[in-house]
Amino acid sequence: MTMSESLELVSATKSFGGWIKRYKHRSRALDCEMIFAIYLPPQAESERVPLLWWLSGLTCTDENFMQKAGAQRLAAELGIAIVCPDTSPRGTDLPGEHDSYDFGSGAGFYVNATQAPWKSHYRMYDYVADELPSVVRQHFPVNGRESISGHSMGGHGALILALRHPGRFRSVSAFSPIVNPSACPWGQKAFQGYLGDDAGTWTQYDACELVAKGASRQPLFIDQGEADNFLEEQLKPERLEAVCAEHDHPLTLRRHPGYDHSYFFIASFIDDHLRYHAERLHKNR
Amino acid sequence: MTMSESLELVSATKSFGGWIKRYKHRSRALDCEMIFAIYLPPQAESERVPLLWWLSGLTCTDENFMQKAGAQRLAAELGIAIVCPDTSPRGTDLPGEHDSYDFGSGAGFYVNATQAPWKSHYRMYDYVADELPSVVRQHFPVNGRESISGHSMGGHGALILALRHPGRFRSVSAFSPIVNPSACPWGQKAFQGYLGDDAGTWTQYDACELVAKGASRQPLFIDQGEADNFLEEQLKPERLEAVCAEHDHPLTLRRHPGYDHSYFFIASFIDDHLRYHAERLHKNR
Repeated sequence: MTMSESLELVSATKSFGGWIKRYKHRSRALDCEMIFAIYLPPQAESERVPLLWWLSGLTCTDENFMQKAGAQRLAAELGIAIVCPDTSPRGTDLPGEHDSYDFGSGAGFYVNATQAPWKSHYRMYDYVADELPSVVRQHFPVNGRESISGHSMGGHGALILALRHPGRFRSVSAFSPIVNPSACPWGQKAFQGYLGDDAGTWTQYDACELVAKGASRQPLFIDQGEADNFLEEQLKPERLEAVCAEHDHPLTLRRHPGYDHSYFFIASFIDDHLRYHAERLHKNR
Repeated sequence: MTMSESLELVSATKSFGGWIKRYKHRSRALDCEMIFAIYLPPQAESERVPLLWWLSGLTCTDENFMQKAGAQRLAAELGIAIVCPDTSPRGTDLPGEHDSYDFGSGAGFYVNATQAPWKSHYRMYDYVADELPSVVRQHFPVNGRESISGHSMGGHGALILALRHPGRFRSVSAFSPIVNPSACPWGQKAFQGYLGDDAGTWTQYDACELVAKGASRQPLFIDQGEADNFLEEQLKPERLEAVCAEHDHPLTLRRHPGYDHSYFFIASFIDDHLRYHAERLHKNR
């Protein structure tokens, strides 16, 4: 183990018989110190357990999901670990980095930036796809079976990671994901800033485009609230529905009347997602 | 209905088939505008439901419990409404009011202050014992059956309200309560400030003293984490245990190894409390 792979325990909090642990580490991909959180269910004290990745949305850190989703109760019962990465590099101070809620800090969009000054730190794709998984496998009692989920910007992250790595995740789900970032204001602002004006470079980070390319047959499970303020302008699930229908890509999209974009929506349906992932994580193939 | 009893809806968020609603109203007891939250389970759309009061701890508002305790899932299943009051008057600006986390704003301690300048606003006992219950009964589909719970300073509040109103609450429980505020730094600072130096006036707001007086036989159900940083200096559950033993007062005190003072502890055991209250709230006497 090299110095750069060492972890510093920030806090350990008992939760439903298991532990929420927060760690600080030096990220090579992001060239900064990062904090992530892991929930270790009680089973992890005596055996290796499967792992669910949770990618969070705009403005979030590693803490929001652990505090507000209410996932630990069932994760403890099902014996699933959950890792929550942060949503952007931290501790850097690039020009304008902290000016917007939807760009820069708290808004890494799970891409590898190619534009200055962002490209020196904003490589969240590599961080969540490669570096952090390697750290987690090295330091925690996980068994190599992984699924992935996320919310909003993090739902986008979960979808593109699963679609770009066929066979790697046993299952993928998302709450209120940005399914077509190339064609909505949040995504366009982020992709222009991080990736530049050539929209041809954006498609690798766009779930609708990836489904259209047919790189993966991974089934997609998505929950969307119908009272979500961002539904029409930013989220546009009907686009994913159309492209999945056109390309015969398996999609389960549930629309929930009255639910908004908040963690109260996530908490209301997180058990369904945990059971969906657990069924696939615990199955011997 | 007079003007002072009107409610202004601040937000409505769907949660587990029910609704979390936040309301602003003018409090006569506190002489300021206050916000409270209510969770209405799905059953409240067609029938009157029982009600659980939740009193929060230092620094909290009406929001912490709703966001972090994960109580809505089971409350929806059991058909129980939950009301979360704020923890102090708001919008006032008394000398020093916002200087400490454990006195003034966010730290009303559920007493009626007798000392200037606090006595003009800090009458949280009257607010949670009388004014807000009257508002809730007037505006929401509740059936008159009520239980009460709370955390830390709010656990203290729940215990004293139940002990001082025999027969009013079907059940009372608490997480990590301040059981003997007259004899710990948090309580002494608050009681001196709000009530003055005569400790004889403090006993009416002290659970250990109230049990010793024998005014009520209400059984007490308490959960306490053994890794709670405040256990030895502030919470001292062994004092309540001793006074209950001495006066033959029914007490169930569970000590949980490894758990701290946070909402992660509350979330881990809130289902036990909800089932305990539901059993008593749904029983026909």
